[in-house]
Amino acid sequence: MSIQRRKTKVVKIGNVCIGGRHPVAVQGMTKTPTADIQSTLRQISELQAAGAEIVRLAVEGPEDARALRSIKQSSPLPLVADIHFNWRLAIAAIESGVDKIRLNPGNIYRSREVSDIARAAKSARIPIRVGLNSGSVRSRAAGKSAQSKGLIALMAESALRYIRLLEKNAFYDIVVSLKASGIPDTLAAYRRMSRLCDYPFHLGLTATGPSSGGVVKSSIAIGALLLDGIGDTIRISLTDTPFEEIRVARDILEAVGARTFGPQIVSCPTCGRCGVDLVKIVNELSRKIAALPLKKKGPALRVAVMGCVVNGPGEAREADIGIAFGKGEGLIFKSGKPFKKVSAGASVEALLKEAQKIG
Amino acid sequence: MSIQRRKTKVVKIGNVCIGGRHPVAVQGMTKTPTADIQSTLRQISELQAAGAEIVRLAVEGPEDARALRSIKQSSPLPLVADIHFNWRLAIAAIESGVDKIRLNPGNIYRSREVSDIARAAKSARIPIRVGLNSGSVRSRAAGKSAQSKGLIALMAESALRYIRLLEKNAFYDIVVSLKASGIPDTLAAYRRMSRLCDYPFHLGLTATGPSSGGVVKSSIAIGALLLDGIGDTIRISLTDTPFEEIRVARDILEAVGARTFGPQIVSCPTCGRCGVDLVKIVNELSRKIAALPLKKKGPALRVAVMGCVVNGPGEAREADIGIAFGKGEGLIFKSGKPFKKVSAGASVEALLKEAQKIG
Repeated sequence: MSIQRRKTKVVKIGNVCIGGRHPVAVQGMTKTPTADIQSTLRQISELQAAGAEIVRLAVEGPEDARALRSIKQSSPLPLVADIHFNWRLAIAAIESGVDKIRLNPGNIYRSREVSDIARAAKSARIPIRVGLNSGSVRSRAAGKSAQSKGLIALMAESALRYIRLLEKNAFYDIVVSLKASGIPDTLAAYRRMSRLCDYPFHLGLTATGPSSGGVVKSSIAIGALLLDGIGDTIRISLTDTPFEEIRVARDILEAVGARTFGPQIVSCPTCGRCGVDLVKIVNELSRKIAALPLKKKGPALRVAVMGCVVNGPGEAREADIGIAFGKGEGLIFKSGKPFKKVSAGASVEALLKEAQKIG
Repeated sequence: MSIQRRKTKVVKIGNVCIGGRHPVAVQGMTKTPTADIQSTLRQISELQAAGAEIVRLAVEGPEDARALRSIKQSSPLPLVADIHFNWRLAIAAIESGVDKIRLNPGNIYRSREVSDIARAAKSARIPIRVGLNSGSVRSRAAGKSAQSKGLIALMAESALRYIRLLEKNAFYDIVVSLKASGIPDTLAAYRRMSRLCDYPFHLGLTATGPSSGGVVKSSIAIGALLLDGIGDTIRISLTDTPFEEIRVARDILEAVGARTFGPQIVSCPTCGRCGVDLVKIVNELSRKIAALPLKKKGPALRVAVMGCVVNGPGEAREADIGIAFGKGEGLIFKSGKPFKKVSAGASVEALLKEAQKIG
């Protein structure tokens, strides 16, 4: 069962295309002050090593906007400038050579300002993300009759009004996001908007809370949209390190079958039936298999590690390589067929050897 | 936006009702050998402390089935016996006084055996879970013409055939599960089955792999089904501790709005705009607020902790209590209105004080 993706325009962010049939891109965000060029560049390199394909930076003042020029010269990843409140910062960021800017319709909305930004982005040939947040939409609408409308209608309406303003300036290089902190609201906002335009979507869930619960919330929301075929680039926001955000983003993309980033291990939760230290075996295998030089193209290798004979052989048979343990030893399966028995102690090396042959 | 739950029969597991309008119950599973009564009872107590409401135990042999009698006498939670291969173990577990048994149609399927189990469960007045696993369904179907059918059709058909067999014995105290390791398959199997019967569902995703990715996969799959209104009890399977499984189960139920277990903290991911150590503040608040004696009934307290003025005031305003930080200090909001400024250092205590007043 594969995902039927929503049809969208294609938008280019530096050398990364999003939308259309392009892979859903993994986006990260630096958590350093942008004006601190060295720290920011170091974090960008670390984000790239973790798997980020696009990186966003907060631009709070003129010193941040100026720093973008040096950061751009050395950055291995396309840069997105995150702009709020001050339209002049958008212009300055564009002049510094960034690959995309993000505007928040909740705090930069005057027609002349938006038109000036659109013209600057058009001549620099970079896209603009119309990045709504439920929080700032509410703030902006506070005290108006709009307040009585539902949040979802308000968000879609605000986004559409902003898009029309850009289009009036013959600007069509647009990406849209509609973040809310609640999951049902976020899903409803993106689903509604998916019927109202064909611009690619940036997916995110804002204000997810402490990291542990944040992973769960982000997985549910982003996962549900991706399974609907909605979403062209994703960024996971956690109150945690930027690298953990990338790890979770990649795990989500793999879980829904949108992308693969390396060998897939399925393993059982262990129970009273398990006769070996499965957690230890899986962790060791997981670490070592990631370091193997396996093929980069085609579907990823599937490895099943199962602790007992109940579901073991069935799961092991559906994988490229599998092992079903009994007491102290395991039966290795290759391409669905029993291959050989090994002791628990020798199992990781035996699986790695077979993985390398197939992989 | 609230979830419209699927209409189901109600089934009673000890003192816990599932299905109908009963809260989606959190189920755990011990990872100790069941025959080790002391270790198993200790783990059951720890699972209860973590928030489990039902606990399942693997029954591999007669010594496990016998141990259930002593475990049942001291267990604070209803017990489910997990039975595979050997129908006599099901009878022995029922005689030991368990509150529910789980059968796997992939390995206990002879009509006479299933009928004998149904009669024993009926006279003990306990329910049976028809617990399919894609792995064992495939194994059982191997080599037959059924092999050519899709996995989803095969799973639904196997489950229905089993249900009819129980119903023929006038047994209707049934719970159903249809676990597959792939997310799209799991969703499709449950959705198909939800149209074919009105028995309550146990949700799970089997063989999720190493813990980090397992949390993501489980959140996406179980979250998507719960948002559809499907699911009456859930168990999260991770290659990790049983307590981590409960934590994730509760986080998922809270994220989709199905249940609340305490104050909800929303917080931002922090970025270059953040002028305080938000991760530290959120972790401290999260730990201390969980220990506050707040009201148990009604919607949980919502606390927003935001690192800057971009989304801060909007999010903070939507919560019962919120704080939006600037450089070194924050503005507390109560019920949507600005309340007072506090220094970053005094912010946790100030929020706790207000939480206690409202909570």
